Amino acid sequence: MITNETDYAIRIIRALEDGQVHSVKVLCEEENIPLKFAYKILGKLRDAGIVSSTSGVHGGSRLIGDLRQFTLLDLMGILENRSELRKCLTPGYRCDWKDKKNCSCQVQEGLLKIQKKIDRELSRYTIYDLLHGNPDLKE
Amino acid sequence: MITNETDYAIRIIRALEDGQVHSVKVLCEEENIPLKFAYKILGKLRDAGIVSSTSGVHGGSRLIGDLRQFTLLDLMGILENRSELRKCLTPGYRCDWKDKKNCSCQVQEGLLKIQKKIDRELSRYTIYDLLHGNPDLKE
Repeated sequence: MITNETDYAIRIIRALEDGQVHSVKVLCEEENIPLKFAYKILGKLRDAGIVSSTSGVHGGSRLIGDLRQFTLLDLMGILENRSELRKCLTPGYRCDWKDKKNCSCQVQEGLLKIQKKIDRELSRYTIYDLLHGNPDLKE
Repeated sequence: MITNETDYAIRIIRALEDGQVHSVKVLCEEENIPLKFAYKILGKLRDAGIVSSTSGVHGGSRLIGDLRQFTLLDLMGILENRSELRKCLTPGYRCDWKDKKNCSCQVQEGLLKIQKKIDRELSRYTIYDLLHGNPDLKE
């Protein structure tokens, strides 16, 4: 599911698109985002190289990433700890259930296939597309 | 994203497919699921009419729902509080950002379109499909 955090992150980036330094306070006011979310999101965007931050009285955040290079899938990966869902599909993983039942498990394989389809959809759109449009996002 | 909780829920349902009453403890052992997750998930499945629960020494949970009637999208809706993401798209919602900028906001509309595409994909598979296969889930 696309979360509020993803929505907030895109809107923070929107407010930073002018290339200027913005304080967290101003960003939150501009985009109507709760302060505690903004700090958390800006930290993750900084770690991912999308924004840079400076401290001090005139400090704040500034956009440094190319929004055409980051897809919605990338952004969701930056914001969320991607699920450990598929750990049982990693090579060498020993599954108690399979050992006990002595049969294959379709659940994880099925969920993985569906997740891959969703990921393909999410990787079709860049953050730039979301802010400025993409033919597939028009009516 | 498909979460561990969704995966656990499907596996709890798998363990209940024999139609018998199973204690939470046995379900957790059977499917290797942390107890605190199992209680939470079973409560939600009960509220949704997928399982029934009885208390007492021989109490436990039993499958009562038709797994062909519940899609993966239904199940994710049962487990998660669906995001409030689109609240600004509800009729009558007053958006400060739009008022200030005096222009349309593409972010929410774009995210909503993508979420709808994902939802369509998630609604193609029933819980039964995930447990017993579906041509689209095969290699």
